[in-house]
Amino acid sequence: MSKSNHVLVGKKPVMSYVLAALTLLQAGEPQVSIKARGRAISRAVDVVEIVRRRFLHDVKIGDVKIGTEQLTAEEGGVPTNVSTIEISLVK
Amino acid sequence: MSKSNHVLVGKKPVMSYVLAALTLLQAGEPQVSIKARGRAISRAVDVVEIVRRRFLHDVKIGDVKIGTEQLTAEEGGVPTNVSTIEISLVK
Repeated sequence: MSKSNHVLVGKKPVMSYVLAALTLLQAGEPQVSIKARGRAISRAVDVVEIVRRRFLHDVKIGDVKIGTEQLTAEEGGVPTNVSTIEISLVK
Repeated sequence: MSKSNHVLVGKKPVMSYVLAALTLLQAGEPQVSIKARGRAISRAVDVVEIVRRRFLHDVKIGDVKIGTEQLTAEEGGVPTNVSTIEISLVK
């Protein structure tokens, strides 16, 4: 079974995602991606900063990817663009 | 006189910052930094994506720096941490 090594940040409290990331890193994952879209992007940056400043000081920030996704709310709807971020945490 | 080559993204509409970035790039700046703190981080990513996808297709994303700043609201107040981002746009 392949393990997931990413955390998708949404609307829950920031510490839920910090805990998810810490769990993956402590379980031996050498790299964990913190992903988010739209307004949750700020929270994803918070997650990264809390993980590496408060908990795991040996974790480094790897690649930071920025992109755009097109979302269509419903069929025939006008597609809207939403920004995305993917921050890689590396042990 | 030294020219400023960064755009600090705050609470104004996203297109104000897009326009500021475009103006700097069109004026010949080879590199422009898009900076933001806290909740404005998502908007900074939007600015970057709009500049490079809608307007200047030859602009690339350079370095993306993530950090934390300590803010103290008033003297004797408890300092709070706020996440920061600095995205470099390179022509």
